[in-house]
Amino acid sequence: MTQRAPLRVAVIGTGKMGADHVRRIEEVVSGARVSAVVDVDAERAKAVAARVDGCTAYTDAATALAAADVDAVLIASSGPAHEAALVAALERDLPVLCEKPLAPDSASALRVLEAERKLGHRRVQVGFMRRYDAEYMKLKSLLETGQLGRPLMVHNRHRNAASPPFFTSDMLVSDSVAHETDVTRWLLGQEITAVTVLRPRPSANAPEDLQDPQFVVFETDGGAVVDVEIFVNCGFGYQVQAEVVCERGTARIGDGHAMVTNMAGRWGGTISQDFIDRFADAYDRELQVWVDATRRGEVTGPSTWDGYAAAAVCEAGVRALNEGGRVEVELVERPPLY
Amino acid sequence: MTQRAPLRVAVIGTGKMGADHVRRIEEVVSGARVSAVVDVDAERAKAVAARVDGCTAYTDAATALAAADVDAVLIASSGPAHEAALVAALERDLPVLCEKPLAPDSASALRVLEAERKLGHRRVQVGFMRRYDAEYMKLKSLLETGQLGRPLMVHNRHRNAASPPFFTSDMLVSDSVAHETDVTRWLLGQEITAVTVLRPRPSANAPEDLQDPQFVVFETDGGAVVDVEIFVNCGFGYQVQAEVVCERGTARIGDGHAMVTNMAGRWGGTISQDFIDRFADAYDRELQVWVDATRRGEVTGPSTWDGYAAAAVCEAGVRALNEGGRVEVELVERPPLY
Amino acid sequence: MTQRAPLRVAVIGTGKMGADHVRRIEEVVSGARVSAVVDVDAERAKAVAARVDGCTAYTDAATALAAADVDAVLIASSGPAHEAALVAALERDLPVLCEKPLAPDSASALRVLEAERKLGHRRVQVGFMRRYDAEYMKLKSLLETGQLGRPLMVHNRHRNAASPPFFTSDMLVSDSVAHETDVTRWLLGQEITAVTVLRPRPSANAPEDLQDPQFVVFETDGGAVVDVEIFVNCGFGYQVQAEVVCERGTARIGDGHAMVTNMAGRWGGTISQDFIDRFADAYDRELQVWVDATRRGEVTGPSTWDGYAAAAVCEAGVRALNEGGRVEVELVERPPLY
Amino acid sequence: MTQRAPLRVAVIGTGKMGADHVRRIEEVVSGARVSAVVDVDAERAKAVAARVDGCTAYTDAATALAAADVDAVLIASSGPAHEAALVAALERDLPVLCEKPLAPDSASALRVLEAERKLGHRRVQVGFMRRYDAEYMKLKSLLETGQLGRPLMVHNRHRNAASPPFFTSDMLVSDSVAHETDVTRWLLGQEITAVTVLRPRPSANAPEDLQDPQFVVFETDGGAVVDVEIFVNCGFGYQVQAEVVCERGTARIGDGHAMVTNMAGRWGGTISQDFIDRFADAYDRELQVWVDATRRGEVTGPSTWDGYAAAAVCEAGVRALNEGGRVEVELVERPPLY
Repeated sequence: MTQRAPLRVAVIGTGKMGADHVRRIEEVVSGARVSAVVDVDAERAKAVAARVDGCTAYTDAATALAAADVDAVLIASSGPAHEAALVAALERDLPVLCEKPLAPDSASALRVLEAERKLGHRRVQVGFMRRYDAEYMKLKSLLETGQLGRPLMVHNRHRNAASPPFFTSDMLVSDSVAHETDVTRWLLGQEITAVTVLRPRPSANAPEDLQDPQFVVFETDGGAVVDVEIFVNCGFGYQVQAEVVCERGTARIGDGHAMVTNMAGRWGGTISQDFIDRFADAYDRELQVWVDATRRGEVTGPSTWDGYAAAAVCEAGVRALNEGGRVEVELVERPPLY
Repeated sequence: MTQRAPLRVAVIGTGKMGADHVRRIEEVVSGARVSAVVDVDAERAKAVAARVDGCTAYTDAATALAAADVDAVLIASSGPAHEAALVAALERDLPVLCEKPLAPDSASALRVLEAERKLGHRRVQVGFMRRYDAEYMKLKSLLETGQLGRPLMVHNRHRNAASPPFFTSDMLVSDSVAHETDVTRWLLGQEITAVTVLRPRPSANAPEDLQDPQFVVFETDGGAVVDVEIFVNCGFGYQVQAEVVCERGTARIGDGHAMVTNMAGRWGGTISQDFIDRFADAYDRELQVWVDATRRGEVTGPSTWDGYAAAAVCEAGVRALNEGGRVEVELVERPPLY
Repeated sequence: MTQRAPLRVAVIGTGKMGADHVRRIEEVVSGARVSAVVDVDAERAKAVAARVDGCTAYTDAATALAAADVDAVLIASSGPAHEAALVAALERDLPVLCEKPLAPDSASALRVLEAERKLGHRRVQVGFMRRYDAEYMKLKSLLETGQLGRPLMVHNRHRNAASPPFFTSDMLVSDSVAHETDVTRWLLGQEITAVTVLRPRPSANAPEDLQDPQFVVFETDGGAVVDVEIFVNCGFGYQVQAEVVCERGTARIGDGHAMVTNMAGRWGGTISQDFIDRFADAYDRELQVWVDATRRGEVTGPSTWDGYAAAAVCEAGVRALNEGGRVEVELVERPPLY
Repeated sequence: MTQRAPLRVAVIGTGKMGADHVRRIEEVVSGARVSAVVDVDAERAKAVAARVDGCTAYTDAATALAAADVDAVLIASSGPAHEAALVAALERDLPVLCEKPLAPDSASALRVLEAERKLGHRRVQVGFMRRYDAEYMKLKSLLETGQLGRPLMVHNRHRNAASPPFFTSDMLVSDSVAHETDVTRWLLGQEITAVTVLRPRPSANAPEDLQDPQFVVFETDGGAVVDVEIFVNCGFGYQVQAEVVCERGTARIGDGHAMVTNMAGRWGGTISQDFIDRFADAYDRELQVWVDATRRGEVTGPSTWDGYAAAAVCEAGVRALNEGGRVEVELVERPPLY
């Protein structure tokens, strides 16, 4: 039997994602509560804390993690701030759920990996929430049955209605395709060994100087070829699709056919308009699974190694985008812990 | 701000549905815990209670409801036991979530209605969980926008792979079509005024003497015509579909196209095999919404009136099945409370 | 080997359907040509004949059928004119393809039946073109394999964007549902024994006094229950769908998913806007099959009996619409010829 | 008005494709007949000719083309024999429909191009039948409306259940992807400028030493990136799909959802098992359109230039497959005739 007492979580970062996780812990998830929130913006931290019974606001992560009523940490601050928070949590041997990316670059990710390796056991889960999406889970389950045979290729589509103003061409790879990086490694159980990026002539609807769309090709150490269409100004909505082509069949997810209407000369349905809508259930499930595992004293989700490998692939991808041609991915040797 | 303390729920009935609700409250829902379970089978009650920290087993509902640590009641016992439990809960002014049917017949439902009317405020929610299914919710939302115009017809399909041994021809109407009864009233906001049941020659795969399938036609006080195919030994799975035909378009749910495979000469996907799988999310959402509303002191779901009307329509349907022809539905006057 | 010489066809009626059939024989079908056209409107007949090499215009059917260069007859005049043309063709023992309906009422159809019975062999094919639609043909083939078991129910949808000005409430049954009458008999190989028509409150988009939509229920001598939604002012397009529910599975046609677009927040496709577009291939195939069979000296399509039975069912349907309740269908004894 | 007399066609090559075209001209197409068949196998030619009224068998193409009763030529012999037959037809200024490929290599194609250029007007249509497939035609029409904006990417899937014994790794490009070569050029109205071929680890179900599947990427002079999955031993059927991604939306064809069944725990439909089944209507339409245009004295289909460009792209593709990396396509200057 799991302990009755709820898991007391410190949430670091109270921006859009952090505030949404606070809401999720308080109103959706069973067996957890938010006991601390941390933000360098003291007013924002206080405002969020005020909405939660028994929650303290901090501006410093280390102080929050030292509090007696903190059992676990959820990191939702900006990427560059992750490393310090992760190391602080590992120093106190606290379980962590860290939003993606684990770290802004592979060097930073390696330092976190080293900190956890020294600790000697896994404490960190990276927030690759697609692993908790019902459709991706079905796809993974089907592949594991082996009835389709070995996977040979994966075709991915990743489309956003419009990109935010700060988005750069590099970010299509490092921020968006980062998800397919993890999905590829997780679905196939293989490492990505090379990346090629093709550059279609940009859409007139993309901001000036933004290379949008891009067409990314991964090769894996298991001999699979994986392509990703990333198009962040497609105009019509948020759409994530994947088709795995195996030796005896294919499986495709992401068509999302819940309600079909006939109206005004057309049949069909609506397309999600943002990732929070599309992956709301995945975020809920990710957090519930993390809370349940943490209360049992386990770590079950994507690991620090997964976060590091994604960072290394994305770095190679950005080089491939900017330099052209095929860029090989170099990984350090995988520690036995992972 | 909602109170921090979790809602303490007494679950009456620890059979399959009851035990599943206990699990849901403990492991899925936020803000509630099971403080009491009740079953005439003392061993079964004790076994379920033993799995939950701080939960007491009872064999008598009245004693359980009198306990200091019970804030609300979830009734999941068999239909004939509902009335006594509902009346006991209303006497103590406790919020109730009662599994469908509200009562085994309209006379019993009327007595519960009268008890709540005397209490002077609504306390009972009936467990018509389809109202919490994401697809039905989308359908309802679309209808409410008015963009399709007025609903004229609804076509429903309700299919089970196989019926349990105790299932009778009457139960296809009173137990299965009961759901479409509520769906019709809820989607259209209209009362059902007449029922006709057609009897296709039964499937060779149905148990002997079971009239399966049946084809049920409702007429409503808003002039809509609603048909329901009920087929409880269809062999291939559990499938619930609805298409609403309006003046300017139609909308259909229940095709469920999450993952599509190509394999062995066929494209397509799997069909749910039971209602718990198909409506798992709806049950989760129903319970979370009920817990949230109850903690705010509100009742938001299907009412005692909805439970009574469904019972009255099902009674007319059973008569239509057995006597042939069109049977009109007689309802008492709707009390102002509803 | 089929004879080299093309079949010389007289087309009676040069309105929209007739002119389209002339075009089809001349430009689409292999092995036939139009040698005569007949229309009471001499100018119209001449105009059509002028577009075809070696084609003579007539105003009188009997004269045309007596011409030396006429091997077969296609009747596309208005319904009330069919009987005379059919009898004239049978007197000359000419093969006939007669557009639906065979005759305006069952009494007229019976007289044609009697004329062909006296002739002693089949010469008439009725233009129920859905039997030549690729999807309906697949459905029929699947049913005939027996892998789904015995058919228990059929659900039909028949929707037009808008009805022509002359359309009456009776015509929804006698003109539109006439197709489902034949489809039901053909798919199931059973006769329809009773008809019930339900009347939803009419759409505000239907012309005043038109009972649109209607919901029609057939019962068959094989114990099947068949429903037809007929809605001739649905606004969004022309849509014909059928789902056959059998003992071990169901099969559905008419969703028409050829091209799927993502655009403006929606996925989906276009809906046909009229029956000529939807059934163009069926008309082409019907005519080619008739030409081929006729050149081999055979009659393979829907018979005079099929035309008579459809007329009788439609008459019962119109009575059911106007009088309410369930109306039984009375057929004469089926002659051994059919 | 088109002349009444049917077009008299000489069919060169009476193997599987040739015999099927003879049947099509005789039994399906309007306005044409087979007056001559040619095959180096005299017995085979005689056998086919015997099934057609008024048809002469030849073993030599030049003799057949000199016959008085030959108006046009359909070439369905093996690729290496095309050039001689094409040149012979052009010398006699006869209209030609030549099965794909136009020629076995770009040098041969160039010689045909030169022969037609000297003749001074177009006479040759290449048998890229996908341009006559209803779905591809819809896709092309949609792109031409401009409502989706400029095409940026095309994703193609080309799958066969199993490859014939003689199939080589090069033929996946030169024989199969040849179709996507033409589809890309036709849909986009752009020339292909570079080809890259990725080599997934081959399927265990592919014959030994066959590089199957392959993943081919085209770049075009309009800045589009086009990918093609070619997998000729996928096991489950014949499947051709294309999705065009444009600035404001995407359009996908090839899902083929005509009939949907629910059976044995699955919903879905069947997959075509070969290209003749999938593209039967396209072949029929191609031939009818060619006959109609030829009788009007026109050439409307894919030209000799299209055949040459496809050959040049395929040659670059085969080099890319065997040498790795990105190979640029070199085309001669386009003559004004095309």
